[in-house]
Amino acid sequence: MPKKKVYQVKVEWGDCDPYGIVFYPNFYKWMDNSQWNFFNEIKMPISKLEKKYGIAGLPLLHTEATFLAACYREDILNIETTIIKITNSTFKLQHIIKRKNKIICYGSETRIWAKQNKNNIISTTIPEKVRIIFKKELSDEIKF
Amino acid sequence: MPKKKVYQVKVEWGDCDPYGIVFYPNFYKWMDNSQWNFFNEIKMPISKLEKKYGIAGLPLLHTEATFLAACYREDILNIETTIIKITNSTFKLQHIIKRKNKIICYGSETRIWAKQNKNNIISTTIPEKVRIIFKKELSDEIKF
Amino acid sequence: MPKKKVYQVKVEWGDCDPYGIVFYPNFYKWMDNSQWNFFNEIKMPISKLEKKYGIAGLPLLHTEATFLAACYREDILNIETTIIKITNSTFKLQHIIKRKNKIICYGSETRIWAKQNKNNIISTTIPEKVRIIFKKELSDEIKF
Amino acid sequence: MPKKKVYQVKVEWGDCDPYGIVFYPNFYKWMDNSQWNFFNEIKMPISKLEKKYGIAGLPLLHTEATFLAACYREDILNIETTIIKITNSTFKLQHIIKRKNKIICYGSETRIWAKQNKNNIISTTIPEKVRIIFKKELSDEIKF
Repeated sequence: MPKKKVYQVKVEWGDCDPYGIVFYPNFYKWMDNSQWNFFNEIKMPISKLEKKYGIAGLPLLHTEATFLAACYREDILNIETTIIKITNSTFKLQHIIKRKNKIICYGSETRIWAKQNKNNIISTTIPEKVRIIFKKELSDEIKF
Repeated sequence: MPKKKVYQVKVEWGDCDPYGIVFYPNFYKWMDNSQWNFFNEIKMPISKLEKKYGIAGLPLLHTEATFLAACYREDILNIETTIIKITNSTFKLQHIIKRKNKIICYGSETRIWAKQNKNNIISTTIPEKVRIIFKKELSDEIKF
Repeated sequence: MPKKKVYQVKVEWGDCDPYGIVFYPNFYKWMDNSQWNFFNEIKMPISKLEKKYGIAGLPLLHTEATFLAACYREDILNIETTIIKITNSTFKLQHIIKRKNKIICYGSETRIWAKQNKNNIISTTIPEKVRIIFKKELSDEIKF
Repeated sequence: MPKKKVYQVKVEWGDCDPYGIVFYPNFYKWMDNSQWNFFNEIKMPISKLEKKYGIAGLPLLHTEATFLAACYREDILNIETTIIKITNSTFKLQHIIKRKNKIICYGSETRIWAKQNKNNIISTTIPEKVRIIFKKELSDEIKF
């Protein structure tokens, strides 16, 4: 099993809405933060991928999240990020958000390995070297 | 067919990331804005639902979005919000985001009709009066 | 007197904090939005200024705001933006935020006319053509 | 001299604008975060102040910030927060934001000791017990 890549967040006042709970788009911001951290942790920072492979970032195709419990100011959240699916030109990251080891939200981001093609961004085959590293990180854990 | 409820957004500089495109959690913020507008438009503002039916808001169970094209500063986006599913105690809103009549993103929010029960929030049956209005708004359009 | 340039904002749920009032950094976001709108309105969109004069944006030197009243969800705010000061290489925008003609917040942004100089951004003289247009927009109104 | 209260921030992708630098309202969000942290650190968490003294939060009267250098993704920022002024019913917090011990931004928040008075919020005298603790935290350092 690959080592989990964990990104920690402390919920702040300004992250919460008039109900006093986290305004939900912030969970997606934190998943995105955790994605950048994930690529740093596997020694493939996105900025280096862009230079080395000429990709046009890792454009987002789909995201989703399921919410199990409300979060409040001062909650400490740990986001565990893994890869759960790899296709020819896409991959899917899973983010499990825990508070004191209890899952309060889980979600995913499906992203494209993309290249600039004149004025368009097109998907392209994930290079073998990258695929090998992605596969090492592929999680056997339950996928939600 | 129910009349579409449309919420308009102008993409601003501060909504965009270093690629110059909308930072994706903002799409969820705009879907949430459109949800509040939807309930105003069907003459059931959420604040009134809370008073009349004693609900504890409309807690979110699940959201998702699919991204078809990047959006840029000064883009004018129209978010068309409809109800696409009603169960005993949940309902699903669909948000179709268009730029000049072309879909650039679509997503959904599944929410719970919820009550405070001591220290917990529990789901409860959607009252018949509300269900009737929701059904009038039920969209026949293609569901993504 | 120059014609006022007005940018309108509707306060949304996600803009508000657990007190139910606008989380104050959002006022700065709206002032920034209004700045972009101001330059569009005076027919000098910032993107064109960058191309025409080779400036490195209009970097911020100083901002401030004074808060007179709390704002709530669904408030309609009008931000009136004017230039209130021009120096050799800087200018100061004033933003007066009104709700139903009552000032609820006023603030300013002092920005630099800047050029890239190797790895640095340095201030540089505002060109005469730009200065003329800025002066036309200079407000005689009370400066806070 | 009182011990400095420091709040740390890591700049993330979503905090940055199309120039690749921090979108400035985020500095105010971080100052606000640091304010909450400050009150925790001096053992007077705001939620307890509300209960003990019946205050209606600590409403903001004025904020300002001066920007000395741009910040980028992955920058680690330390925000040093102190009290620099106390009046009968207001106090002023100073936030000095450093990257590797170099000041990149400094700002302040002037807040009111406030009470609910029917439908209004009015300023009221800071209680002696609180004033004593605030005075202990009063910074002798240079005020910007």
